[in-house]
Amino acid sequence: MVSLQKKDAYRVAVLGATGAVGRAMVETLARRNFPVAELRLLASPKSAGQTISFRGEPVVVQAAEEAAFAGIDIALFSAGADASLTFAPLAVRQGAVVIDNSSAYRMHEDVPLVVPEVNPHALAHHRGIIANPNCSTIQLVVAVKPLVDLGLEHIHVATYQAVSGMGQKAVDALMQEVARGPASSEPTLFPVVSQPEHYPMAFNVLPQCDVFLDNGYTKEEMKLVNESRKILELPGLAVSPTAVRVPVLYGHSEAVALRFSRPVRVEEVRERLARAPGVVLVDDPARRRYPHPRMAAGTGETYVGRIRQDLSDPHTVLMFIVADNLLKGAAWNAVQIAEALIGRGV
Amino acid sequence: MVSLQKKDAYRVAVLGATGAVGRAMVETLARRNFPVAELRLLASPKSAGQTISFRGEPVVVQAAEEAAFAGIDIALFSAGADASLTFAPLAVRQGAVVIDNSSAYRMHEDVPLVVPEVNPHALAHHRGIIANPNCSTIQLVVAVKPLVDLGLEHIHVATYQAVSGMGQKAVDALMQEVARGPASSEPTLFPVVSQPEHYPMAFNVLPQCDVFLDNGYTKEEMKLVNESRKILELPGLAVSPTAVRVPVLYGHSEAVALRFSRPVRVEEVRERLARAPGVVLVDDPARRRYPHPRMAAGTGETYVGRIRQDLSDPHTVLMFIVADNLLKGAAWNAVQIAEALIGRGV
Repeated sequence: MVSLQKKDAYRVAVLGATGAVGRAMVETLARRNFPVAELRLLASPKSAGQTISFRGEPVVVQAAEEAAFAGIDIALFSAGADASLTFAPLAVRQGAVVIDNSSAYRMHEDVPLVVPEVNPHALAHHRGIIANPNCSTIQLVVAVKPLVDLGLEHIHVATYQAVSGMGQKAVDALMQEVARGPASSEPTLFPVVSQPEHYPMAFNVLPQCDVFLDNGYTKEEMKLVNESRKILELPGLAVSPTAVRVPVLYGHSEAVALRFSRPVRVEEVRERLARAPGVVLVDDPARRRYPHPRMAAGTGETYVGRIRQDLSDPHTVLMFIVADNLLKGAAWNAVQIAEALIGRGV
Repeated sequence: MVSLQKKDAYRVAVLGATGAVGRAMVETLARRNFPVAELRLLASPKSAGQTISFRGEPVVVQAAEEAAFAGIDIALFSAGADASLTFAPLAVRQGAVVIDNSSAYRMHEDVPLVVPEVNPHALAHHRGIIANPNCSTIQLVVAVKPLVDLGLEHIHVATYQAVSGMGQKAVDALMQEVARGPASSEPTLFPVVSQPEHYPMAFNVLPQCDVFLDNGYTKEEMKLVNESRKILELPGLAVSPTAVRVPVLYGHSEAVALRFSRPVRVEEVRERLARAPGVVLVDDPARRRYPHPRMAAGTGETYVGRIRQDLSDPHTVLMFIVADNLLKGAAWNAVQIAEALIGRGV
C-alpha cells in the first residue's frame, strides 16, 4: 500500500466543510485523534467566514480556490461532483492526496474506489485521487464481502434511506414538514431538490433517490450496482436494486437477499459476519434484537441482523443491514481511507 | 357464486367498530351506499356506550355478546383473532355470514380467503365464514394476479408498512413520539405492544411486524407467503418476504421483484396492469410519477409503478406497489366481499 510521505502530522483540507458530511468529517478527524498539523476548512464563497469548532478551537471557513490547497497533504472532498471535478486536479497538482466523497471519479478506471474493510489493496495504485463510495453501497459491501467466496451470484436489495443523504437542508425540511403535521401535504424539496415535482416526505416513503436514468432506474440504484461490482471485483455480479427514501434523519437500512452458487447455511453466514471487520452482528429474533437506524446513528459500524434462510431456496440468505449514512456511509469511511494511507491501519 | 337471501337491505353488524379498521368499515358502508337496513356496532364492554356516526345518524356501540348477532345478515369482524374465534360460530349459527378481518380462519381449508379482484370464485363455497386477507397480502395479490399466467415462479417482497396496521393506538403513539422530537429515544409501543422490547418508531424503521416465529420470520412475513399461495392458488409459489414498519400513518408500500418461467417484457406487464381491476398504474419516471403512501391514503385502489426489467435477468420484473392498508388492505376489501355476496358485483 502506498503511504503518504511519513510525517508526525498532516495538513488536512476539508472541502464542503459546512455541509452535513463535511461537518461529520471534521468531527471524525477530532474523535479519531487524526494527526492533524493544520486543518483548512473550505466551502463555497457564500459559506466562507463561518466558523466550525475543531478540538475545541474555532476554525474559519475559507472560500475554495486553487491557492487554498497549497501545502495540503490530504484533502477530504464532499462538495458535490462539480466541485470535485474543478478542485481535485488542482489539489493533486499541488501534492495533495484527494479522498473524494462525490460520484465524480468513482467509476474512473484509474481511481480506486475503497472501503477499507473490503478492498484496502486497491489503495496501492492511485494517481492522487481515491474515491469514497456511495453511502448505500458502503454498508452493503461491508456486510457482503465476508460472504463473497461462498459463491455470491446475486444481490437483491431494497433500501430505506435517511433524508440526511440529501444534506442538512433535507434534515431541516423533513423537520419542517413534520412540524406542520400529517394533515399538511405541502411539500418542501423531496425527492430531488432541483426537479419540479415535490412530494411530502413526512409520514411518507418515496421510491426515488436521486434522478432517473433512461433505463428506468435511479442514479442511486445504479450506484448500488456499479460500485458494488467495482469494489467487490465481481464485474458480473447481478444486483437488483430498489432505492427508497424514508422519513428517517440518520441511518440507511437495506433488506437484502443474497443468492450463492451453492447451498449456504445461516450458521456459516452468522459466524463469518460475527468476526468480520466493521460488522456488528445484532441477530437474536427470540429476544427481538435486530438492527435499526436509531441504533446505528452516530456510530461507525455496519449492523447486520434478521439473517435467515430463504424459505424456498437453500442457495439464498436474507438479512437486514443498517449503518449511519453520514459516518460509515461517508465521513468515517473517508477518514478510514486517510488512516490507511498514512499507515495507521484500519 | 352463492348469494345471501336477496333483500332490499341487510342487517349489518360491525364487530370491533371502535377500532381503526372498524371505523373505516362503517365509513365505507356509508360511502358505498351499501343497502343497510340496520347497523349494529359491537365492541368490547369497555368501548360500549360510545357513539359512531353513520350516514349522519349517531349509532350507540353495544357490547359484543351472543344475543347481539340475532337477526344479523352480514357481520364484518375486525376485533382480533380471539374475538373472531369466540363470536364467528355464534353469529353463523344465528344465520349471519361473517366476513372476518382477523387471521383466525384465513388458512382454514373450508374458509375462502378472498380478494374480489383476484379470486371471487372462491366465494362460491363457504360455510358462513369468509376470511379477509392480511393488508400487505391484499395489495400484493391485486398487483400480481394479472401477471400470474406469464409463468410466475417467485416473489421477492420488502415492505414499508404504516403504523395504522397496529391500530389507532399506534397512530397516536407515533404522533406522540414525533412531538417529542428526534432527540428523544423514549419508546412507546413499537414494534409489538405486548412484548417487552420497545424501540423508537419516529425517525426510524423497524424490521419487525408482529411476533417472530421459530423459523426466524415474523408472522407478518409468513402471512405474505401463505396467504398469497392460497389466494393465487399457487401452493408451490416461492415468496421471499421482509416486513418492515416505517413512520407512515396510512398506506403500505412494497418493493417487489417477480421472476417468471420465461422472459417477460415490461411493456406487457404495464399493459396488463393498466387494465387490471383495482389497479391504478402510476408509472412515468421521466415525469417523476410513481406511487407513494400519501397518494394512496384514503382511496380503495392499489397503485403500481417503478415497473422495470431486472438488470441481469430477463425473466424478472421489479415494481413498487402501494395501497391504503385500512381500506383496500382491510375495510374496503371486506365491504367488497359483502357486495359480491349480495350480487352487486365488483
